[in-house]
Amino acid sequence: MPLESEVADALARFRIAIPSWGFSPMGTRFATFLLGDEAKDVYGRIDCAAAVHQATGITPGLALHLPWDRVEDMGALRRYIQDRGLYVEAINPNTFQDPIYRLGSVAHRDPAVRARAAEHLLWCVEVQHELAAPYLSLWFADGTNYPGQADFRRRHTHLVECLAPVHAALRAGETMLVEYKPFEPAFYHTDVADWGTALRICQQLGDRSKVIVDLGHHFQGQNVEFTVALLQQAQRLGGFHLNNRKYADDDLMTGSIDPYGLFLIFRELVKGQRRYGAPVESVSYCLDQSANIEAKIPAMILSVVQTQEAFAKALLVDEAELERAEAEGDVIAAQQALREAFLTDVRPMLAEFRRSRGVPEDPLAHYRLQASAAGRR
Amino acid sequence: MPLESEVADALARFRIAIPSWGFSPMGTRFATFLLGDEAKDVYGRIDCAAAVHQATGITPGLALHLPWDRVEDMGALRRYIQDRGLYVEAINPNTFQDPIYRLGSVAHRDPAVRARAAEHLLWCVEVQHELAAPYLSLWFADGTNYPGQADFRRRHTHLVECLAPVHAALRAGETMLVEYKPFEPAFYHTDVADWGTALRICQQLGDRSKVIVDLGHHFQGQNVEFTVALLQQAQRLGGFHLNNRKYADDDLMTGSIDPYGLFLIFRELVKGQRRYGAPVESVSYCLDQSANIEAKIPAMILSVVQTQEAFAKALLVDEAELERAEAEGDVIAAQQALREAFLTDVRPMLAEFRRSRGVPEDPLAHYRLQASAAGRR
Amino acid sequence: MPLESEVADALARFRIAIPSWGFSPMGTRFATFLLGDEAKDVYGRIDCAAAVHQATGITPGLALHLPWDRVEDMGALRRYIQDRGLYVEAINPNTFQDPIYRLGSVAHRDPAVRARAAEHLLWCVEVQHELAAPYLSLWFADGTNYPGQADFRRRHTHLVECLAPVHAALRAGETMLVEYKPFEPAFYHTDVADWGTALRICQQLGDRSKVIVDLGHHFQGQNVEFTVALLQQAQRLGGFHLNNRKYADDDLMTGSIDPYGLFLIFRELVKGQRRYGAPVESVSYCLDQSANIEAKIPAMILSVVQTQEAFAKALLVDEAELERAEAEGDVIAAQQALREAFLTDVRPMLAEFRRSRGVPEDPLAHYRLQASAAGRR
Amino acid sequence: MPLESEVADALARFRIAIPSWGFSPMGTRFATFLLGDEAKDVYGRIDCAAAVHQATGITPGLALHLPWDRVEDMGALRRYIQDRGLYVEAINPNTFQDPIYRLGSVAHRDPAVRARAAEHLLWCVEVQHELAAPYLSLWFADGTNYPGQADFRRRHTHLVECLAPVHAALRAGETMLVEYKPFEPAFYHTDVADWGTALRICQQLGDRSKVIVDLGHHFQGQNVEFTVALLQQAQRLGGFHLNNRKYADDDLMTGSIDPYGLFLIFRELVKGQRRYGAPVESVSYCLDQSANIEAKIPAMILSVVQTQEAFAKALLVDEAELERAEAEGDVIAAQQALREAFLTDVRPMLAEFRRSRGVPEDPLAHYRLQASAAGRR
Repeated sequence: MPLESEVADALARFRIAIPSWGFSPMGTRFATFLLGDEAKDVYGRIDCAAAVHQATGITPGLALHLPWDRVEDMGALRRYIQDRGLYVEAINPNTFQDPIYRLGSVAHRDPAVRARAAEHLLWCVEVQHELAAPYLSLWFADGTNYPGQADFRRRHTHLVECLAPVHAALRAGETMLVEYKPFEPAFYHTDVADWGTALRICQQLGDRSKVIVDLGHHFQGQNVEFTVALLQQAQRLGGFHLNNRKYADDDLMTGSIDPYGLFLIFRELVKGQRRYGAPVESVSYCLDQSANIEAKIPAMILSVVQTQEAFAKALLVDEAELERAEAEGDVIAAQQALREAFLTDVRPMLAEFRRSRGVPEDPLAHYRLQASAAGRR
Repeated sequence: MPLESEVADALARFRIAIPSWGFSPMGTRFATFLLGDEAKDVYGRIDCAAAVHQATGITPGLALHLPWDRVEDMGALRRYIQDRGLYVEAINPNTFQDPIYRLGSVAHRDPAVRARAAEHLLWCVEVQHELAAPYLSLWFADGTNYPGQADFRRRHTHLVECLAPVHAALRAGETMLVEYKPFEPAFYHTDVADWGTALRICQQLGDRSKVIVDLGHHFQGQNVEFTVALLQQAQRLGGFHLNNRKYADDDLMTGSIDPYGLFLIFRELVKGQRRYGAPVESVSYCLDQSANIEAKIPAMILSVVQTQEAFAKALLVDEAELERAEAEGDVIAAQQALREAFLTDVRPMLAEFRRSRGVPEDPLAHYRLQASAAGRR
Repeated sequence: MPLESEVADALARFRIAIPSWGFSPMGTRFATFLLGDEAKDVYGRIDCAAAVHQATGITPGLALHLPWDRVEDMGALRRYIQDRGLYVEAINPNTFQDPIYRLGSVAHRDPAVRARAAEHLLWCVEVQHELAAPYLSLWFADGTNYPGQADFRRRHTHLVECLAPVHAALRAGETMLVEYKPFEPAFYHTDVADWGTALRICQQLGDRSKVIVDLGHHFQGQNVEFTVALLQQAQRLGGFHLNNRKYADDDLMTGSIDPYGLFLIFRELVKGQRRYGAPVESVSYCLDQSANIEAKIPAMILSVVQTQEAFAKALLVDEAELERAEAEGDVIAAQQALREAFLTDVRPMLAEFRRSRGVPEDPLAHYRLQASAAGRR
Repeated sequence: MPLESEVADALARFRIAIPSWGFSPMGTRFATFLLGDEAKDVYGRIDCAAAVHQATGITPGLALHLPWDRVEDMGALRRYIQDRGLYVEAINPNTFQDPIYRLGSVAHRDPAVRARAAEHLLWCVEVQHELAAPYLSLWFADGTNYPGQADFRRRHTHLVECLAPVHAALRAGETMLVEYKPFEPAFYHTDVADWGTALRICQQLGDRSKVIVDLGHHFQGQNVEFTVALLQQAQRLGGFHLNNRKYADDDLMTGSIDPYGLFLIFRELVKGQRRYGAPVESVSYCLDQSANIEAKIPAMILSVVQTQEAFAKALLVDEAELERAEAEGDVIAAQQALREAFLTDVRPMLAEFRRSRGVPEDPLAHYRLQASAAGRR
């Protein structure tokens, strides 16, 4: 069993960013249901994120979405954020909603469309500088719906060329995150379909670009933790968009469908720290989920708690015993080493950790009580 | 080779219904792009469907969606439809958009919600009577997003109880179609998840209910044609929602991703006719696809043409040779028998068939020429 | 929280059968690796199963495979089994290895092949009588590899006709279990592809047939617990073949890849008992996994333990709170109710339960110590 | 429409290699059925491949498998091959059957095991030199079955280090092909799981290594042609293992399940040639399928024919029209351009091509007639 202090230190350094868009109305292509807990504007969204941080104590970072979170006076926005003890972790551009992006943005055939996308991205980098956000987090809806519709190679070249000046505009300490997704909203091909494509794009762009892993952007059965390990080994793991799914990119609460899978991902991260010198906190963690039917703030809090639990359990693995089992090819003992950690009830340990930091022992119960008293969800 | 007359007769009896909603703005949860070809109201949608029928000659049937296609004077609507040489094939209720349906409709825990859904369905049956539509086509978005959210069995019981009076309201010659779908918009479980569930519901309801197969509502790798055969053998195959997909329920143009798969489904239908006495035209065929980025009317025409081609090829299989190969367990010869039919270029045959019926030989070219002359897509 | 006595009683009634074939050499189509722990004959396999029972205390049942477990004197075999405190739970026929079954067995086109299969099955029923085994557990490899190879409907009819006399040969208290599997070893279609097909076969055969759910025989993403609930509601849930998988029918140790999924299945079973009067122990539980690289007995013990843990956690759910959350549509609270149970460390409770029954508190540690002392794995 | 001469030239340059192992007994983990057409030894397997070449005229290349195809006098083997008008295209090592490879080969934790694997691979390179084979085709079964069993990063490092001397041993004109596969026979992780991993390994090894795409080694829904395009753009597309599947790595006859998918892959290759200067014949094509229930030589011939048809259709696409449709974002016209080619019956064209080269017009019919006359399958 690792020293308690290692666990406490690791938990103390662990942060999860909260996406502002998570407090906007969310839905599927069939319907968007309002529960009345949607924030009215960016200030309301920041207040929601602040409530999550107040309950959990580990979510001071914000992911903003542009232009959704744009205001006239960005300086005032920054102060609003700082006044709540928060900071901006990531800027997320949007090149998928404007009508000109119907057939793509950075990979579009038309140079005018690409120029428009590049212009938006460069403006986002300026905002990033202004808000001192370490990450520019890029997801592109680019792709095609039918065979023959476009030339994959041409689009790939366009995409890399379009991102090159954006990458060049980044300053020291700033990182471009490139997200992959196999399908949706494009249904035949996606220009950044998988981690291999994202990695190649980063290799072509330069050292300030890394790959971000969205937990819902894989094929069924794909081994996500293996991808995490390989990306980290290639010095290109940039971070995570956390959520959970049963089928496709369902964007459910993190840890709600496959908590063991989440644990295994954190196992790789803890292994990266213990064996390979890559601190767990050296990459970015950000929730990215869609509360279609449930209350938004509680869904975020629960996701944070479940992620923290997965991390805590991953820290509890007896590394020496696991190394022994690995070395001896003792498959049963290795399984047993993971079991011991995963079966441990980490709630008392986390309650104590929270208490020691002046945070509610049970963040969700605390929030629900508060909300109930205030007549909110 | 079957007699040419059998092929010609079969093609002459084959009809595909056109969904009115296919001419409304369509999109994904990320964006809806307007191409300017969206119809303004139900009359515009009927005009669009009429254009498809004018080009193809085999799509006189309409699928209407309520309340989207509701007008004050339904009699006037019926005349408008008849004046264009069309008729109503199916009525499609909507119990998924109203805010009260956030947690379900016919399977909802709250009797008030179920009553509202039943009321809507019964009203749809009245419209069905009024418009002389043979099919009431039911798809439910009902399901849950998280484990523990609801009791599967209770919901199943509610669903069957809620549909019972609707089934009872059907008249002779009217059929209720029950559609299944494994996920989306519900992401943990769907109350009518698969054909087995749909079949059981029909068995509980009675003889006027059958299962409708949407080509995009299966798991990857699932053998759809096997399901078609089994449902027909169980006397419960009601019809098809035609489209194509590469990943999930992508709703792409029919035949655009896997034309051989479409051919194999029609092979089962032709087999059902030739060997088991179930006429191909005894079930309902209706397009159900979403033109997110392409022009809507051409997409419909192309889908009709590709479906017709698949059916024509399926008719060309040398049944005697295939039976021989089956009987002798000659796997290679069986494959060869299907190949011979599928590789045949049926375009000349279909052109002749269309010519003989006063329809443009090349429906898509005809429409695009017309549209181009008129300055439309 | 349910009364402790309910949990203790439920645990006391819970049994998992051990498959004799699990101690034979196992492999993939690429290789079979021997670890030296393979049993030499049926007596050795029974000894292995006895070792599992000795360690766990809840596996007195045996699943035998014929003809693999055939001996001249079946009476002697039965006494050998009884002498070890075991009994026979299920007889598993084999109609997939003989060369005549290349194109199928019970669904084969050739009546001579079907007759041979039927004869074998009827002999198995005789052995079942002789060994007093409650279950005849049927899995068929029947299917085709290529489109056109065979007529699905004809094969379905053959299959049902071939099983009818087998069903008729069953005595009161004996149940035929029909297993479904979507693919492998047949790669285009499988004659009993899914639970819907299996259910239909049972409906055609009669009341002594039920469906058995093998946890690895589903498509990716398919909601297994929903299927379990529906089958139980239809009075046709017969039992389980327990294992785990990440991709296809991987036959890994139960609970090793997705412990939460296993918990959710037991949740449905506990719900069936508490809300619908179907005792958890009224269906059959049998391991069915393939230890390709790990030691066989420890793999079985670990699977038993992990299944027992999943069941114990499922029993801990606060049903009243969950019912409340369901009734109020409180998605977050429902999630929380499941969490509370799943996060509980049930090892102390299970240790106490085992102690009270004179079984080693930690079955795996106990066995490994014993084996190590004896120089075995 | 491209000039006929381009099509004829392209067809004339196109070759598909035949795997010697395709004529050995083949099966699944459940059974291996002998049809009596299995070759007895490597000479028999070469005779079978020669029969395929005699029928098709485009399969002079052989893929050999070591040690299965090892003989004492490799010089005699080479002469035997040459005497039949054949040559060796690829050498395929085997590091998955020996008992020491239970937990891996080139990625195994134990240096002794890796040394044994490296020794075998280096010996294979010597044979490659001796038989003048351009390709060393590497597939590794390496992986793990359970979480925790091994350290992904350590294994990756071992694998690259183990292959480095093998890569260094290659001469000018020789290429190492690295194959990826997501699962089977390893069921939790595979060390070369996907094209991204294979590409990274090649980048680490050097310019004589490229990625080989086995058509069955992808997740359901994965866009294989996109991967082909990206690999070619990265100068790392090495070739193909041709087969088809409906579910996992089913190894069915090429073109038997999804002929349009095969066409789309060849579309990318033709596009690579026409637009990007990468000749179609610059990569390796080799069948890799398993005839579990059908006759082996006819299965090979049919696969060759179906691949040739897919290629011929891909050549028929009106590139100018497709480019126009792409440039204008005319999704419908692009679909139409592919349709026109795919719907064309290329059998007459291919018959003429074969006639002009002294090959039977219908290779399968020719072979079956011959075989029937000789009393063979």
